[in-house]
Amino acid sequence: MAHLLSVSCFSNISSGSRSYSKPLNQWSISSHASVSLPISSSPFKKLALWANRSKRCSTIYAAAVSVGQEARVQPGSGSDQASDGASVPKKVMVIGGDGYCGWATSLHLSNKNYEVAIVDSLVRRLFDHQLGLDSLTPISSIHNRIRRWKSLTGKDIQLYVGDICDFEFLSEAFKSFEPDAVVHFGEQRSAPYSMIDRSRAVFTQHNNVIGTLNVLFAIKEFGEDCHLVKLGTMGEYGTPNIDIEEGYITITHNGRTDTLPYPKQASSFYHLSKVHDSHNIAFTCKAWGIRATDLNQGVVYGVRTDETAMHEELYNRLDYDGVFGTALNRFCVQAAIGHPLTVYGKGGQTRGYLDIRDTVQCVELAIANPAQRGEFRVFNQFTEQFSVNELAALVTKAGAKLGLEVQTISVPNPRVEAEEHYYNAKHTKLVELGLKPHLLSDSLLDSLLNFAVQYKDRIDSKQIMPSVSWRKIGVKPKTVAA
Amino acid sequence: MAHLLSVSCFSNISSGSRSYSKPLNQWSISSHASVSLPISSSPFKKLALWANRSKRCSTIYAAAVSVGQEARVQPGSGSDQASDGASVPKKVMVIGGDGYCGWATSLHLSNKNYEVAIVDSLVRRLFDHQLGLDSLTPISSIHNRIRRWKSLTGKDIQLYVGDICDFEFLSEAFKSFEPDAVVHFGEQRSAPYSMIDRSRAVFTQHNNVIGTLNVLFAIKEFGEDCHLVKLGTMGEYGTPNIDIEEGYITITHNGRTDTLPYPKQASSFYHLSKVHDSHNIAFTCKAWGIRATDLNQGVVYGVRTDETAMHEELYNRLDYDGVFGTALNRFCVQAAIGHPLTVYGKGGQTRGYLDIRDTVQCVELAIANPAQRGEFRVFNQFTEQFSVNELAALVTKAGAKLGLEVQTISVPNPRVEAEEHYYNAKHTKLVELGLKPHLLSDSLLDSLLNFAVQYKDRIDSKQIMPSVSWRKIGVKPKTVAA
Repeated sequence: MAHLLSVSCFSNISSGSRSYSKPLNQWSISSHASVSLPISSSPFKKLALWANRSKRCSTIYAAAVSVGQEARVQPGSGSDQASDGASVPKKVMVIGGDGYCGWATSLHLSNKNYEVAIVDSLVRRLFDHQLGLDSLTPISSIHNRIRRWKSLTGKDIQLYVGDICDFEFLSEAFKSFEPDAVVHFGEQRSAPYSMIDRSRAVFTQHNNVIGTLNVLFAIKEFGEDCHLVKLGTMGEYGTPNIDIEEGYITITHNGRTDTLPYPKQASSFYHLSKVHDSHNIAFTCKAWGIRATDLNQGVVYGVRTDETAMHEELYNRLDYDGVFGTALNRFCVQAAIGHPLTVYGKGGQTRGYLDIRDTVQCVELAIANPAQRGEFRVFNQFTEQFSVNELAALVTKAGAKLGLEVQTISVPNPRVEAEEHYYNAKHTKLVELGLKPHLLSDSLLDSLLNFAVQYKDRIDSKQIMPSVSWRKIGVKPKTVAA
Repeated sequence: MAHLLSVSCFSNISSGSRSYSKPLNQWSISSHASVSLPISSSPFKKLALWANRSKRCSTIYAAAVSVGQEARVQPGSGSDQASDGASVPKKVMVIGGDGYCGWATSLHLSNKNYEVAIVDSLVRRLFDHQLGLDSLTPISSIHNRIRRWKSLTGKDIQLYVGDICDFEFLSEAFKSFEPDAVVHFGEQRSAPYSMIDRSRAVFTQHNNVIGTLNVLFAIKEFGEDCHLVKLGTMGEYGTPNIDIEEGYITITHNGRTDTLPYPKQASSFYHLSKVHDSHNIAFTCKAWGIRATDLNQGVVYGVRTDETAMHEELYNRLDYDGVFGTALNRFCVQAAIGHPLTVYGKGGQTRGYLDIRDTVQCVELAIANPAQRGEFRVFNQFTEQFSVNELAALVTKAGAKLGLEVQTISVPNPRVEAEEHYYNAKHTKLVELGLKPHLLSDSLLDSLLNFAVQYKDRIDSKQIMPSVSWRKIGVKPKTVAA
């Protein structure tokens, strides 16, 4: 039994002031692996087995096969009917599908019998090289990830390697794949990265805003019925002294009433780029009839999803560094190596959090229940609120159960943010669509902590402390010493 | 008596993925003109005189003089004391100082004894060439404009020709001139231009957002006490069904109250770029202590200010085409040549308007009364509200006085906008600072109409009709036939 995996690579060749995309290489890979997928409670023992079995049975053939010419894998039962009986999207393009949320989502959707194409420039891996950072978990190349997925499940994931800021590349990907839905994770997603220096601030806003503009134009031109599922952030709202609603707020003012976009108060060039995206998308929904869902996501924690746990080559990345690491993941790594938990400032900063297993569930719910033509729908995508001090207390308690003595220290806050504030954000719309949250619990913390302990030899403690200051950002390019 | 005018030219040399700025040429110009400035009620008769006198007495010398090495012109009386007695900015950098509002502002500030430097890439003139458009009024080169100003008044205006998206260029301009205030008009400012095609939409957002980010970084790095006076637009607010406040609105929601940024609903990629700027600037005020005033300007009409009327070489541009022409200016030109006034759709679209003489007055008021460190101050800069139908009626009435028979037709609206809506926007803050509005009156319409009649041989009627559709914008570059 042979399965085809097609990969299409583009390189950006700069010619004068314009960029052109040329297909450099197209090949297909056959594999003879066809394996059932037992899920055990201990994914790490199982993974070694899979690695051994897979080495034996996978063979790679190179051949000239055009992207999109293979027979398509049709979505299976359970995914092709929306709750109201209308047909739902079957072909999903995941932009940024090699990243933390994107990879988990791509596998989840493929496993649910969506036909998936990943579009990614892979620049996130370049950031690690340039900044001297690395994932806690060892991660495989995107090519090996997709081959392994194919060998384990028989499912194809198409790959388009290129930059969505290059519209000729994006056009080719759209015309080739013809998506019913686009999930757009393809942005520079770190607030500290955007605050390193001027050139990275400019890169972040250019990359995110122009990339999203290009996606909107591609949908208008090549598939105007395509549903855009865009990753926003809860950070767009800031920390207002009133309840945060989902995208819109009804205001009565001087005797008149209107429902308007919820005011935005973002606090980094990254978060601001998402605010800009939201405004741009809202306009195109109104002017062009684009259908869009903006998922204002909270802070994601965890690393394991059902699919990434199947094989070591499918592992997701786990960032714990001061640039890409988020609070809870970073705390678990600190606890594992006996590093004090680093609370920034007073620790009263409260945010929405969610398990990465809920990220993939929310995206699937959004795809299966598309926005209407012309609708700009906003969901707040998180399941629970915690302050940083509350997270530190939870990690300390869970660490004690594993025999870890966890200390907490306050470090000067590198950010400009309120450290004690009111915070009450609504998050009911995804629950109404059927979200079943994985709540943060001792067992999850145990699992995350166990994971960190397992890989603690890979931890580079020099990466942990914050190295980027919101106030000290300058115009000179910041370089990294060896 | 010799006066020095220094001009510095930079060219952008692209080398790989980065741009470098090199000073290509620096020279100074001496002029022996020193003339008093009588103002008469008929600027056009007077201008011919000035042209003749000036030709006689101006002599140009080329010499290698570095920018900023001349003795500075100090602000005269009346401009160096704020109302509270504190000293006010004396050196003002006007970015976009060769444009419609920028040129009028530069001369006004220079006339008020501010030391002025114009920073401009001159790309607005390139747009005219590329789109086959031209100003109704003949306009001189920026070099001749500045030389003429010098010869008439003895006042220096420094010139930095380059693109503020090129940070090396902008850095040099900042370090050389050391401004106390920056007035930032340097953006692509046409909504239709931003809706021509994908590449111009992307250009508009890139140019405006990145240019403004660079200005913010330059202020932080080279003069953190410098006051940014940024031109926004009333179009950022859209047409909400409640009163529009000046930048912020106090909301009581579920029993709690906060004052938040007024919600934004922009309706073109241009207007959106200004929304993005506003969010970026607000963040830097909070994070870095930048002092900024955002002037959310209405639609500007008129062409003559005291200073531009002094000489034909100082004339301001007047755009009447479907891309850069705004409603009232365009109507006057249509009336002058017997073209029906083109009302888009139902004509109930209501906006704030102001005379260009009030634009220059408002900018001066903002500079003379700077924002505090860390303050993001927003003023709505217009003097009166009109619907398009009301403007058409005013032009028809004024035309009748001049013996013009003015017709009005409704053309399909190329934009996506409400054609009948509530509109009530506050605009008291600039009046509180001392603005004395020039209200739209029959006499002003007469003057604008007279102007259009005087230059009617220069009118190209093919430029008048709207050529850009909000709904039909596509990804293919739109070219212009001969």
